[in-house]
Amino acid sequence: MIQIGVIGAGECTPAISSIAYEVGKLIAQNNGVLVCGGLGGVMEGAARGAKEAGGLTVGILPGFDPKESNPYIDISVVTGLSHARNVLVVRSSSALIAIDGGYGTLSEIAIALKLGKPVVGLNTWNIDPAVIQVSTPREAVERALSLIQKKH
Amino acid sequence: MIQIGVIGAGECTPAISSIAYEVGKLIAQNNGVLVCGGLGGVMEGAARGAKEAGGLTVGILPGFDPKESNPYIDISVVTGLSHARNVLVVRSSSALIAIDGGYGTLSEIAIALKLGKPVVGLNTWNIDPAVIQVSTPREAVERALSLIQKKH
Amino acid sequence: MIQIGVIGAGECTPAISSIAYEVGKLIAQNNGVLVCGGLGGVMEGAARGAKEAGGLTVGILPGFDPKESNPYIDISVVTGLSHARNVLVVRSSSALIAIDGGYGTLSEIAIALKLGKPVVGLNTWNIDPAVIQVSTPREAVERALSLIQKKH
Amino acid sequence: MIQIGVIGAGECTPAISSIAYEVGKLIAQNNGVLVCGGLGGVMEGAARGAKEAGGLTVGILPGFDPKESNPYIDISVVTGLSHARNVLVVRSSSALIAIDGGYGTLSEIAIALKLGKPVVGLNTWNIDPAVIQVSTPREAVERALSLIQKKH
Repeated sequence: MIQIGVIGAGECTPAISSIAYEVGKLIAQNNGVLVCGGLGGVMEGAARGAKEAGGLTVGILPGFDPKESNPYIDISVVTGLSHARNVLVVRSSSALIAIDGGYGTLSEIAIALKLGKPVVGLNTWNIDPAVIQVSTPREAVERALSLIQKKH
Repeated sequence: MIQIGVIGAGECTPAISSIAYEVGKLIAQNNGVLVCGGLGGVMEGAARGAKEAGGLTVGILPGFDPKESNPYIDISVVTGLSHARNVLVVRSSSALIAIDGGYGTLSEIAIALKLGKPVVGLNTWNIDPAVIQVSTPREAVERALSLIQKKH
Repeated sequence: MIQIGVIGAGECTPAISSIAYEVGKLIAQNNGVLVCGGLGGVMEGAARGAKEAGGLTVGILPGFDPKESNPYIDISVVTGLSHARNVLVVRSSSALIAIDGGYGTLSEIAIALKLGKPVVGLNTWNIDPAVIQVSTPREAVERALSLIQKKH
Repeated sequence: MIQIGVIGAGECTPAISSIAYEVGKLIAQNNGVLVCGGLGGVMEGAARGAKEAGGLTVGILPGFDPKESNPYIDISVVTGLSHARNVLVVRSSSALIAIDGGYGTLSEIAIALKLGKPVVGLNTWNIDPAVIQVSTPREAVERALSLIQKKH
């Protein structure tokens, strides 16, 4: 199973949440496993989309309690590492889709670029040409999948 | 889904591997998700058992490459944290079943006791009365499940 | 003792190294402890400057061997956490001075902003107004010190 | 500078604290840097001893705030990693002296043995012949120093 990460803030507008929902749904429809930070906002939107399409979702949590997970997470990885868990979200994903996001998301984009992972951006930090900027959930998932295939 | 951890060494005898296999199978048959360190030995035995019973398996890997996972791991959590990932195996499990094992397993037992997690032992370190020593895979999984229920 | 972090790439030009050297020297002359990632490039330049001014230097290393440290590190913190150690460099510093740098440095800037730590930049990522851009080592250290005082 | 770790519980009796104090003092008198978890109990006793002998002390903290450190810590390494920081205490020490201690200390002893680090025990877990049991602070520090030299 291909693991695809969705990164973004723990709080977001309904518009961003619905973009995340579409991304999560498309990941599941393409037989991908959704990896995320397990919390609210973009993470919850993506997980809800993946679950509604019958997919599998993994939440790599910063804290100490599996109940931190949003209701759409199947597997809770409880790290107790706080922000250092961001690195694990990146490492556990074959490609990352960044949606909107603040400084935490920026740190994940940076680590992903450092590790040479494909990063696709939707309405997110435009800080480097290595982040492939796209404009729709469909493009995001298609680009992520094709970039993963190119690496294998 | 209840996540149950199986801990033990990355290399083991066929006899220990077959105990791990039975434990993994029983976890899956009881609708548990198997959490482990993702490598060989006891981890591979347990994951093989869980998969053959149609279960779901999570490997929390110490290194940098999802290919470190044994062939029976569904979800690879790639940590890059080396032995510090042991803490994540413990935190991500509602109870731990320790099978045989060396110093790495001992560190996981110690962290589990520190965090107040139930630990059931099969042929493992007998260092503290808080580790419930049992003699069969069936007893191990039954005790783990009943200790989890008691906590909830 | 005030701990000030210097972040930047493990390889750099002589010009950047000499900027790092000045920054390290000024940190030590102001009774600060230099915190860095312990490796070469900017980290080595800064540590050399701090040591030549009689200061104390801490290297928070990504790998497994204290010998990874550059020759100007007094205290080697051996993490074995790879890039996740970046978060520790940030957390262990009351302010950060970013010099040049690539994606690893960007991840540290992002985590510092996430944690609300003052970040002063010299010839580095200009991605957010919260990074105080300056043009000389003296300005960098002075701004870092005054931002730390303001927070206390 | 040789870095020697002292491990033990965050709360302890006055008798244990005074053993830790002697150990810390002897480490400093032998030009060692004291590495510990930075908190109270054994860690504080050892750090106080080291400081009174003019030594340097490093606290590798589990939490988010340098103020967690006991008053005798010079360098605060703020990890935010909770118990996973135990691995860093071990990795950053050329030898470990375990004094009394509970499950957290047991996890550190186990990791140290896993990594092949010398471990000297004073009134601590007697779980493996690889832990050199001694009965006085002087013996503890002498054995630690001689075991470090043998490895180099």
